[in-house]
Amino acid sequence: MDRLIAAIREKQNPTVAGLDPKLSYIPDFIKKEAFSKYGESLEGAAEAVWQFNRGLIDALAPIVPAVKPQCAYYEQYGWQGMRTLERTIRYAQKKGLYVIIDGKRNDIGTTMEAYGRAHLGKVEVGGQTLPAFDGDALTVNPYLGTDGVAPLLPLCEAGDKDLFVLAKTSNPSSGELQDRAFPGGQTLYAAAGELVERWGEESRGKWGFSRVGAVVGATYPAQLGELRMELPHTFFLVPGYGAQGGGAKDVAPAFDKRGLGAIVNASRSILTAWQKTGASEADYAKAAAEEAKHMRDAIVAEIGGIE
Amino acid sequence: MDRLIAAIREKQNPTVAGLDPKLSYIPDFIKKEAFSKYGESLEGAAEAVWQFNRGLIDALAPIVPAVKPQCAYYEQYGWQGMRTLERTIRYAQKKGLYVIIDGKRNDIGTTMEAYGRAHLGKVEVGGQTLPAFDGDALTVNPYLGTDGVAPLLPLCEAGDKDLFVLAKTSNPSSGELQDRAFPGGQTLYAAAGELVERWGEESRGKWGFSRVGAVVGATYPAQLGELRMELPHTFFLVPGYGAQGGGAKDVAPAFDKRGLGAIVNASRSILTAWQKTGASEADYAKAAAEEAKHMRDAIVAEIGGIE
Repeated sequence: MDRLIAAIREKQNPTVAGLDPKLSYIPDFIKKEAFSKYGESLEGAAEAVWQFNRGLIDALAPIVPAVKPQCAYYEQYGWQGMRTLERTIRYAQKKGLYVIIDGKRNDIGTTMEAYGRAHLGKVEVGGQTLPAFDGDALTVNPYLGTDGVAPLLPLCEAGDKDLFVLAKTSNPSSGELQDRAFPGGQTLYAAAGELVERWGEESRGKWGFSRVGAVVGATYPAQLGELRMELPHTFFLVPGYGAQGGGAKDVAPAFDKRGLGAIVNASRSILTAWQKTGASEADYAKAAAEEAKHMRDAIVAEIGGIE
Repeated sequence: MDRLIAAIREKQNPTVAGLDPKLSYIPDFIKKEAFSKYGESLEGAAEAVWQFNRGLIDALAPIVPAVKPQCAYYEQYGWQGMRTLERTIRYAQKKGLYVIIDGKRNDIGTTMEAYGRAHLGKVEVGGQTLPAFDGDALTVNPYLGTDGVAPLLPLCEAGDKDLFVLAKTSNPSSGELQDRAFPGGQTLYAAAGELVERWGEESRGKWGFSRVGAVVGATYPAQLGELRMELPHTFFLVPGYGAQGGGAKDVAPAFDKRGLGAIVNASRSILTAWQKTGASEADYAKAAAEEAKHMRDAIVAEIGGIE
């Protein structure tokens, strides 16, 4: 996690911009050009998303340390969409951004290794070793236990990559299973958190955080604070800020005294800032950058700076 | 689930062939030809997987009612691999097979809808409505609760598609979270199963099973039997047969008196049958078909036929 923390400290910004591109968020001039080249097709949609993302990345790279593309919005345009995901990751990394692939992948053994090679490592083809999506971190679902996470740990170590494992998600129904308590009072999300600490035991970096982070929603500030106390070596990815209802005060409990320990994600509020503020289409990326600055400033003011 | 059940009855075969193609499973003649065309590249690997799958599907289509491609093995070859996934799905459907996309996807709200459009529905681009991967069923992880499943239900209803939600997975560490019991004794996997029954309440078909199935591993026969009793309207996808250790006796508790209620998956034992039996490379698909017949016969003998 040290690379991410270094980037957060350098930019004095503990936030990540979610790249969840719906076509309805994309200015017409981009869609028109993409459709005129490739038609109203999956390729046309994928091209529009790529051009939208490229503009966003150019504008956001000086401000945020990281971006988080959400796989679902790329998969919906088929392999053409997945090509845009790969291009987006390569371009963001070229611009110095740390890329969290939000795939919430989960499986076991050699299958989970294949997901690891896809998103965090390299894949062997004959005598070649090649990158596929090759992000800097991947989100992972803990339901299958150690068999679903252990296969990724050597890949993370080899490539200086990280994981974020779901603990307490930001959605209204997250409690249906996650909040249920076992005898003694430990909840499922806390049990998942305990596993996360254990999975990270051997990969703690210079700030005390391991390569195995956790996802904890901004919409549940009490649980954020509780998990911050219980999981001292676990870095948090905090979704649910902005459009989902979490504010700067809500995410403050995710941070330690140094202002470290978490990175807060916003997607919709950044991507649709041009629509909300009435900016011209041409200024969509500038509006996104302004919104990202507001978010940064609000959170940094709340946590009192980053050491 | 009626389409799947009809296919199972027609072929008198309650098994599904997992298409989890590792390069090491693929005969050299296929790899050589693919690499000679496209190099030792992601495209070369994706081409080899596609040719391997095509041969398998041709040989398996008269025997099995369904195939289950595992996304991880396609994603590891980048968008080129995802193109092979799409081709594999189209080709299998053309051959009359029901396709379960094993992606174990999970997210919330509009993001989960995007996964649904990707794998089960169609996506709108301008004035067009287009298929992306467009399988017949998708595996889903329940950790996020109703917000992670409800967005898929209208898509399933509209397109006559189905889901399989993880309940008790086949791996050794599945118990770390899934077997933990809440006060009163209900385990997490049983709680997930209870949600599955509820999610399926409005979509029961003519055999009494809903569109929302559950994944329950062949390696835990006691839990299979327990869940069969508790979830009378839930169709099971049962992984873990063959290479993972489950046998025909182990999966029998997943079926009801009619011989319905479950479809059992095997991947490795079918895909590597040519290597295990010492068949020639050219006969890899024939060996897979023979193994699929053995599996069918063993299970049908154990459950005493399908009504």
